[in-house]
Amino acid sequence: MHKKLFIPGPTEVYPDVLEKMATPMIGHRTKDASALQEAISKKLQKVMMTNNTIVLSTSSGSGLMEGAVRSFTKTRAAVFSIGAFGKRWHKMCTSNGIAADLFESELGQITTPEMLEAALSTGKYDLITITQNETSTGIHNPMARLAEVYKKYPDVIVCVDAVSSMAGDLIPVDELGIDVCITSTQKCLGLPPGMAIASVSEKAIKKAETVENRGLYFDYLELVKFVKEKPYQYPSTPSESHMFALDYQLDKILEEGVENRYKRHCEMAKIAQDWAREHCELYSDPDNLSVTVTCVKNTTGKPFSEISKAMGERGYLMSNGYGPLKDITFRIAHMGDLTVEELQQYLKDLTEVIEA
Amino acid sequence: MHKKLFIPGPTEVYPDVLEKMATPMIGHRTKDASALQEAISKKLQKVMMTNNTIVLSTSSGSGLMEGAVRSFTKTRAAVFSIGAFGKRWHKMCTSNGIAADLFESELGQITTPEMLEAALSTGKYDLITITQNETSTGIHNPMARLAEVYKKYPDVIVCVDAVSSMAGDLIPVDELGIDVCITSTQKCLGLPPGMAIASVSEKAIKKAETVENRGLYFDYLELVKFVKEKPYQYPSTPSESHMFALDYQLDKILEEGVENRYKRHCEMAKIAQDWAREHCELYSDPDNLSVTVTCVKNTTGKPFSEISKAMGERGYLMSNGYGPLKDITFRIAHMGDLTVEELQQYLKDLTEVIEA
Repeated sequence: MHKKLFIPGPTEVYPDVLEKMATPMIGHRTKDASALQEAISKKLQKVMMTNNTIVLSTSSGSGLMEGAVRSFTKTRAAVFSIGAFGKRWHKMCTSNGIAADLFESELGQITTPEMLEAALSTGKYDLITITQNETSTGIHNPMARLAEVYKKYPDVIVCVDAVSSMAGDLIPVDELGIDVCITSTQKCLGLPPGMAIASVSEKAIKKAETVENRGLYFDYLELVKFVKEKPYQYPSTPSESHMFALDYQLDKILEEGVENRYKRHCEMAKIAQDWAREHCELYSDPDNLSVTVTCVKNTTGKPFSEISKAMGERGYLMSNGYGPLKDITFRIAHMGDLTVEELQQYLKDLTEVIEA
Repeated sequence: MHKKLFIPGPTEVYPDVLEKMATPMIGHRTKDASALQEAISKKLQKVMMTNNTIVLSTSSGSGLMEGAVRSFTKTRAAVFSIGAFGKRWHKMCTSNGIAADLFESELGQITTPEMLEAALSTGKYDLITITQNETSTGIHNPMARLAEVYKKYPDVIVCVDAVSSMAGDLIPVDELGIDVCITSTQKCLGLPPGMAIASVSEKAIKKAETVENRGLYFDYLELVKFVKEKPYQYPSTPSESHMFALDYQLDKILEEGVENRYKRHCEMAKIAQDWAREHCELYSDPDNLSVTVTCVKNTTGKPFSEISKAMGERGYLMSNGYGPLKDITFRIAHMGDLTVEELQQYLKDLTEVIEA
């Protein structure tokens, strides 16, 4: 039995989108392939609210995150972490010999403008990474307030992990002055995992030209070159299946409208948060709760394994806590194409299960 | 109109396999996901004739090729190139700051045992890369003869690019003493592009433990750790669609039988070579012709664009030459699930087109 996914990725993918994954192959050096990549890029620019260059990568979001710190750091990176995925970005630096400092917030708390200011004012850093949305704790950073700070340092390359939020949360890339904004297919975009996406500013591209040792597969200059010069091609053979499905799904997303999609995610988030307040407790900073995933402190008295098993029998897949929060929280993802009604039904079942 | 692919990747994927790409998603940290990866790994061990650890990567084959030189080179790599993809492996070294020398054969010629001996006897190298099958020239290296040489140097890590040949050509990994054998889904395995595969020896794993600066996404130690310890998981979210299709397709491959599949590829290769000798000329060393792709010198008097257009009207996608051979050759791929009958029909059409 297929279980309906209420986990923070991969998210539930609807049958019409899945069907596009079964599209027959085409030659990846043909005009048809270029037209497909161009169409995807233009639609993604709308969804990401940017005029920057769009690159695709056959990989998970982690690949393009690692590529970003390799391609754009010349001096030293400041990695701001609000949970597991921020820490992973730091590990990507150290495992590639990139000088980097980790600025961790307490679990469940945001990166503050003060933290950013304190680091950037030292003049030590030429690249920063920010996690827009952290699925391990269910919070999102106050990007507009952070942008006020980093915009004062125009030489710094701003990289943002929007893997679990782009096309759910509202992230106007150009307005926020984000140089490299990274996402992937299996979260709010509502597609299967397997493809990562980034928008790249001209400033970042120029910067990369001065950086050595960028590697090849995740070298942003190589990815950008194939987009700009070929044009709209990919350095190796891309996952065409994901491209067919992405092209189709982006039409659906633009039909719903980016603002409407955001409103739906906000509405779902409020429902999940209200449920958590009524039946358990919210884990994280109440002023900065994510609109795509809710992290719930498990105060039900029932172990997660028992709740999860009962929910499994009702056809759902739940997500426990992540890393150090594994045993004390569980998470309700409300991202992608899930509807308010589906979430309400899920929470109705969850209530019955914890009250049983 | 979908054009039938006779190009050296992506290859034609048959409807029942494509359909598996549309399988609904599952949680990637579930027992079901581990069982899927375990099943795939065990089947791949049979196809690759190895007891080594199998790692999967959401990427093209290039990703795992780059990861291999980063993970296993400590001193200096000797890159043996017989065409475009060998040279790319060298670029992967230099773009990652890995000391490497390129040993190029003339286009259309193999890597000789003498070349290998001359390089290895210097004692300068702790890793070698060999292209088992080169699609740009349509030749394959004499692996058994090369193995006689490199087996005399047991401390050297042997990496082999079998991207365009594994499951078509016969490559008994353990018998040949290959430490890291890399392939990907979109060639002889008959699947869509988007997933790379490698077998990794214990010797290579031990070696990687001594190598710094391996990166993260393509770090073989990280990939192996998730296979061995979790077990059978993947460090980030893998392309589940490819895994579902791969699992299904491997059953079909094992049902045909690895030896029978090889025989079918040999038979198709002979048909393509005979056709080339009769109607044009073969480009490469006649003693080492590939069994998965034939590189034909275009002596028809017709430009490729004209032939290709006419073949396109008959529903086929052809492949021109690669790199420096772009204008003087074209290529006939005969890999994956293509049948002798399909190839014969294709060549019948091609004959009509060039004689028109």
